[in-house]
Amino acid sequence: MDGVLDGVRVLDLSRVFAGPAATQVLGDLGADVIKVEEPGRGDEARGFGVTAPVLERLGASPSYLALNRNKRSIAIDLKSPAGLALVKRLAASVDVLVHNFRPGAMEKWGLGWDDLRAANPRLIHCGFSGYGESGTLRDFGANDVALQAHSGLMHLTGEPDRPPVRVGTAGIDLHGSLGMVCAILAALLHRGKTGEGQKVTSSLLQSSAHLMSYFYTDWWLARTEHRRMGTANHLSVPNQVFPAADGDVVIIAPSDDMWRRLAHALDPARLDRPDFTTAMDRRTHRVALVETLSAVTRGLTCDEILRRLGAAKVNVARVHNVGQAADHPQLEAVGAVLHWERNGQAEQGVAPPFTLGAAPVGVRLPPPSVGEHTTQILAELGLDDAAIEAARQAGAFGLAEAAPPA
Amino acid sequence: MDGVLDGVRVLDLSRVFAGPAATQVLGDLGADVIKVEEPGRGDEARGFGVTAPVLERLGASPSYLALNRNKRSIAIDLKSPAGLALVKRLAASVDVLVHNFRPGAMEKWGLGWDDLRAANPRLIHCGFSGYGESGTLRDFGANDVALQAHSGLMHLTGEPDRPPVRVGTAGIDLHGSLGMVCAILAALLHRGKTGEGQKVTSSLLQSSAHLMSYFYTDWWLARTEHRRMGTANHLSVPNQVFPAADGDVVIIAPSDDMWRRLAHALDPARLDRPDFTTAMDRRTHRVALVETLSAVTRGLTCDEILRRLGAAKVNVARVHNVGQAADHPQLEAVGAVLHWERNGQAEQGVAPPFTLGAAPVGVRLPPPSVGEHTTQILAELGLDDAAIEAARQAGAFGLAEAAPPA
Repeated sequence: MDGVLDGVRVLDLSRVFAGPAATQVLGDLGADVIKVEEPGRGDEARGFGVTAPVLERLGASPSYLALNRNKRSIAIDLKSPAGLALVKRLAASVDVLVHNFRPGAMEKWGLGWDDLRAANPRLIHCGFSGYGESGTLRDFGANDVALQAHSGLMHLTGEPDRPPVRVGTAGIDLHGSLGMVCAILAALLHRGKTGEGQKVTSSLLQSSAHLMSYFYTDWWLARTEHRRMGTANHLSVPNQVFPAADGDVVIIAPSDDMWRRLAHALDPARLDRPDFTTAMDRRTHRVALVETLSAVTRGLTCDEILRRLGAAKVNVARVHNVGQAADHPQLEAVGAVLHWERNGQAEQGVAPPFTLGAAPVGVRLPPPSVGEHTTQILAELGLDDAAIEAARQAGAFGLAEAAPPA
Repeated sequence: MDGVLDGVRVLDLSRVFAGPAATQVLGDLGADVIKVEEPGRGDEARGFGVTAPVLERLGASPSYLALNRNKRSIAIDLKSPAGLALVKRLAASVDVLVHNFRPGAMEKWGLGWDDLRAANPRLIHCGFSGYGESGTLRDFGANDVALQAHSGLMHLTGEPDRPPVRVGTAGIDLHGSLGMVCAILAALLHRGKTGEGQKVTSSLLQSSAHLMSYFYTDWWLARTEHRRMGTANHLSVPNQVFPAADGDVVIIAPSDDMWRRLAHALDPARLDRPDFTTAMDRRTHRVALVETLSAVTRGLTCDEILRRLGAAKVNVARVHNVGQAADHPQLEAVGAVLHWERNGQAEQGVAPPFTLGAAPVGVRLPPPSVGEHTTQILAELGLDDAAIEAARQAGAFGLAEAAPPA
């Protein structure tokens, strides 16, 4: 079965998380993704959060390996005129360009949308930045946690009487990656109708604002100032973590029906009380309810609570650690795990967060080593061996490549 | 300028957060979104997390108003045969159907992909569920926080010596909404090539796994068990919140160059120390560095720290509360705020997290009241006044509508 993006060529100048996560989804959908990397070190994410022994064994960090399958790597020094010239030739030949350089950098190199559109009017030029390409903050550096702080997300995360904490994953980066995919797919649809490419952009700021959208509207329209509540929630009670005999579970029963089913499934004598009957009752008696329900759940194992509440159609889940979550068989059952082989070893990663019935995704290429496909990609661009050698001598592939140690 | 999805008709049977957030993006892109609501109450989100006076004034919760612009509402009782028949006629007429009923419910009503494809082979049928449509957990109820717990995200969020906490926003719902938009746009591209619709699905499970993808790969490939670290990060130091004289800031300086610029911008005498020189040094001397840098930042205001570190190209951001974040002018500067008028009042919401240069988004319709467009939509479907009245008498629009109290 063909991929949706078979035949679409993507030039990926992005690094670290949001950009590579976006182009991986495009690659999973069938696009030919050409990842441009700095000669030698490559994408900085190759060294992120990894110990020396693991780096030695895998050749790249798990963070890099998680986000770079279905790509080919070309190692080019953008600071060398010969390297920049090659990137411009590549940009003229592709359907989509993705980058996350600071606003203005691409224009400085002659790689901005206005520079490239004359030669390639069908190009979709996608830039991802911290705070967008206008406004007083456009030149401010930022990363995921900077926008967790700026956006108010950190302010809402943590215990009520303790300082705020960060969200444990780079969610603003990864949400931004899907923002880029949406923009690029929309631009491909637009191109299908009009024949024209366009410039599209996204940013950590826009990603964070979208994640916070209902809190912002609550502020704008009602001046509501929400606060952090640990694992609890202002919407309903119970809606938080409860202790079991052998671990923790979250239990959520927003409707009166669901609460009644919960009470009968766990301990009607203690829970089916008149002061817990309605949603408003339960919010009013939040402290008493949480204490009473905790006393009940402490006497039961996680498995027993999941069994009883699952059967009663009450929302319940175990609080897993990362390994328990990653190895839970439900992930495989819904096709959320993709498998590949790299250097003779079986590896696996998380699939895009959706399933297309008529166009399943698969892994054609494992994550590449730095510059693994440099020659192949340049040959496809029409460079013969002599031209590639001339580019090498001119420093296009970095000084180390131009003059290897004797 | 035309929207990318002008002419695309979407039947939206979804409720609460993920589905409505997805169809709002489709509407922002130009699609005609028909929101099917339960007569009377409508989408449950209309009452979520709102006080009685605010509900009285706005007519719906800010959470609902944040996610339902650019839609028309039709109030139909799916439990009534006459109502179900109307929904089937609508499903036969649209390009995209979105729902978040539990796996199996749509099939029970004859609204599954296999039921609808014969009459409408170009239909894109998008279902969103908790744990997907297969596997042992497929029938388990779930919501955002259930998947925060199940996925390990909660385990990574919080202080090291305290229990885990929830992420302050429904990030798994909202990330899942973009997963759906990606799937639907990809399916529209596929339909453009093949003429064929398809079934697409997403789930809270897949959304959460994508947000956790690099932690899962770290577990799968290196058996690394990450722990929660408050606002800090295992990747580099400094990379967390620091106290200022009048608030808090996050400061992130992962590279040695950036650290040197930070030290010289803030207090070289105290910070430019040999034991803080390299990334490894800074990780090794994490406690001393955080103490020393905190002593420096405590003597400066947030504004002063932002000014100095911003000029030095060091990543820095203020820890905002929700109101400060929502009202920061940078959001307007990048076009991340959309404005509309409803019942004579100015309202605003967050735009999709991307910008299309050739197809800007706008608000054609404010969030609707329950059933505001019922008659209009049915008339477009070809029903005359008599047929609509017959459907009403048959209970298609709910009992309250069929027999109003005298």
